Amino acid sequence: MIQPNIPETTLPRVVIVGGGFGGINLAKKLKNAPVQVVLLDRNNYHLFQPLLYQVSTAGLEPDSIAFPLRGIFKKHRNLSIRMAEVTGVRAAENILETGIGEIHYDYLVFATGSNTNFFGNKVIEEHAIGMKSLIEAVQIRNYVIKQFEESLLLKDEAEIKPKLNFVMVGGGPTGVELAGAFAELRKYIMPKDYPDLPVHLMNVYLIEGGPRLLASMSEKSSRKTLEGLQHLGVKVMCNTVVKEYDGKTLLLSTGETILTQSLLWSAGVKGVPVTGIPKEIIIPNGRILVNEFNQVQGFTNIYAIGDIAQLANDPRFPKGYPMVAQVAIQQAKNLAENLIRGWKGQPMQPFRYKDLGSMATIGRNRAVAEFANMIMSGYFAWIVWMIVHLMSLLGFRNKLVVFINWFYRYFTYERGTRIIIKRGAANIVKLRQSVN
Amino acid sequence: MIQPNIPETTLPRVVIVGGGFGGINLAKKLKNAPVQVVLLDRNNYHLFQPLLYQVSTAGLEPDSIAFPLRGIFKKHRNLSIRMAEVTGVRAAENILETGIGEIHYDYLVFATGSNTNFFGNKVIEEHAIGMKSLIEAVQIRNYVIKQFEESLLLKDEAEIKPKLNFVMVGGGPTGVELAGAFAELRKYIMPKDYPDLPVHLMNVYLIEGGPRLLASMSEKSSRKTLEGLQHLGVKVMCNTVVKEYDGKTLLLSTGETILTQSLLWSAGVKGVPVTGIPKEIIIPNGRILVNEFNQVQGFTNIYAIGDIAQLANDPRFPKGYPMVAQVAIQQAKNLAENLIRGWKGQPMQPFRYKDLGSMATIGRNRAVAEFANMIMSGYFAWIVWMIVHLMSLLGFRNKLVVFINWFYRYFTYERGTRIIIKRGAANIVKLRQSVN
Repeated sequence: MIQPNIPETTLPRVVIVGGGFGGINLAKKLKNAPVQVVLLDRNNYHLFQPLLYQVSTAGLEPDSIAFPLRGIFKKHRNLSIRMAEVTGVRAAENILETGIGEIHYDYLVFATGSNTNFFGNKVIEEHAIGMKSLIEAVQIRNYVIKQFEESLLLKDEAEIKPKLNFVMVGGGPTGVELAGAFAELRKYIMPKDYPDLPVHLMNVYLIEGGPRLLASMSEKSSRKTLEGLQHLGVKVMCNTVVKEYDGKTLLLSTGETILTQSLLWSAGVKGVPVTGIPKEIIIPNGRILVNEFNQVQGFTNIYAIGDIAQLANDPRFPKGYPMVAQVAIQQAKNLAENLIRGWKGQPMQPFRYKDLGSMATIGRNRAVAEFANMIMSGYFAWIVWMIVHLMSLLGFRNKLVVFINWFYRYFTYERGTRIIIKRGAANIVKLRQSVN
Repeated sequence: MIQPNIPETTLPRVVIVGGGFGGINLAKKLKNAPVQVVLLDRNNYHLFQPLLYQVSTAGLEPDSIAFPLRGIFKKHRNLSIRMAEVTGVRAAENILETGIGEIHYDYLVFATGSNTNFFGNKVIEEHAIGMKSLIEAVQIRNYVIKQFEESLLLKDEAEIKPKLNFVMVGGGPTGVELAGAFAELRKYIMPKDYPDLPVHLMNVYLIEGGPRLLASMSEKSSRKTLEGLQHLGVKVMCNTVVKEYDGKTLLLSTGETILTQSLLWSAGVKGVPVTGIPKEIIIPNGRILVNEFNQVQGFTNIYAIGDIAQLANDPRFPKGYPMVAQVAIQQAKNLAENLIRGWKGQPMQPFRYKDLGSMATIGRNRAVAEFANMIMSGYFAWIVWMIVHLMSLLGFRNKLVVFINWFYRYFTYERGTRIIIKRGAANIVKLRQSVN
């Protein structure tokens, strides 16, 4: 048994798996608690996922939405951060199995988030592109620009069209924001960068299985979103499901086919629990059943928060809480307080979600937002959307760089980061092997 | 024979290979000339190489020193940009062979720059890391951070030291600036990010074959540079050559060995001419012999400018001009004027290099700079260095983002972009294959 070199203490050890919204907020709240905190993540940064779609559409540089974990916690004396892939748990022994060795815990918290859900369709999974990680977003950007560059080499419009048909699946916030950003590439960038390619060759589709976009928001917001996207030229198809996709031809439940080489999948997410969590407490979308204290069912010292946790005791959310940042952040704070209460011998408080509202942007100057009982749309909602996202970004540098990109883009209609960073030189292979 | 889809015109066609300093300045100057210009590059961006070292040391995001070629030339009606790898030339037929097909030219200009020169040592080439491309710089950043993360997992100092010994080879501006940046990582970032790793475990070496650093500058600048680097804790070794390196043990000409897993090679660059250029006019470091009009020897309609061109008729530079941006820019402008003169039936003007000076930064607050007969060093030279580099960067957005990063770093001692963007998800493999 290899044990990674984590400082020895006599304090109880809280191991947090995942440096997303849940994990970092929990670690922050435990800063002055009488425990040793170990934060594990496969990456060395916290990723601000809500803006991933802007990286994939060349609006932001990847670095501006990633914040080094060690930068967040530089004054935390009781915290050890390790890059590690977690593979399993042996609950009877209080041991977590990871790529860097076995780690003993007194308290274990899964804050592992979610990954793209292809609902078991292996063929679609093989050909479609998910967008949950920074590298996926960068690769999408590279891929999309490459489609344009390659289209320039072709004379036959029938060959070009499949390259410039971009299909988003899933009418949630990610699909909507992505479709809007693609439509803006078409409207503002394509005529300038590729004047030789007629704009009608590019098409943006948004496919939604249900009757309306942004189903978690009001009917009015859905309607405004639909109108906004259609105004930008997005072909929105509701009540439509993807049946088959082989990388070239997309078959829809309506019988329609679309020739496309780019299927961007944001139709669902799922939790990915590690080996050792009993199958009985994992629901079909991979979330782990927890009680109102975010304790994993059947355990007293294992917790789950955020996307990976399934808590369905709130009558407002009978299917469990939405897989969004706010739930993770609030559960992290409640759990931190409960752990501290526990160490003081006080009773724990059940989790109570406070819905702070939701929003989505639909391209330039247009968004929908709902707070409490207020429904906003249009320019004002877009300003609110920008302010909320800027405020939520970690770090002064990132806020400033994102702000400048937005400011610059607003006035110039440019997207400064439309570059393809590709591999080439031979000795990179060596580096890549050692970094992977 | 595949011909890429380049617009047909009756105008003569100038094909420029390479979108570096030479290529883009030539294309700019030909904006209103009565010709069709075709600009080929393997990337879709212009790279500001002088700041590459800051990307590899987590000081700047890669996107901030890359500028999309299509953004530079968006109002050029007579220009076609294509991403292409150029493989050969058939001069008798005026045909350029490329990865996207064969391209006919009336005038051909090689502005292909240079690549890392390992002077034929295959073993070193296999294990050392060059730094001439954006992806190399990003990979170095990933690799370096990974060395720190992995060191945390080790208890034995003897195992840690080889991971944290960083050796730069070559005492030119790149090696000096890189060594300075590594020394700053050690001084400012390591104690904050890795308090568990004692600073003495990290060592930065700079190996130079000649008697002094920055040999192209004055003795005084060399001395100031040496003092500056030593002050930062860099172990500078002059009159020392790398004999062997197997990826673990570095053997020097002094007999000394250094255990290191990171050998960064900036000891030389070389041109890489395409097939079809006669061997007789290629000198050992890969540069192509040109006359004072930058005409490739033996041809009237093939030119070479910048690093790839060897022009040794200037008594100030008997071995040919230095391989720096200024030479490329000035040759580009002279060539553009000569081509225009030629079309007007006027005689060509020989190239005359105006040395605008040179400079190198040695970490925070310290640089050396020489203009005309003036030698500067210290804080003032550092300010000048920053201003010159900011002014030379293409694009307002890039200038602003770089300025913010520098400003932020100056006051916080932070490096915001110390993240590892690594591959992982399965469906990325598919994307990578199609992007490469």
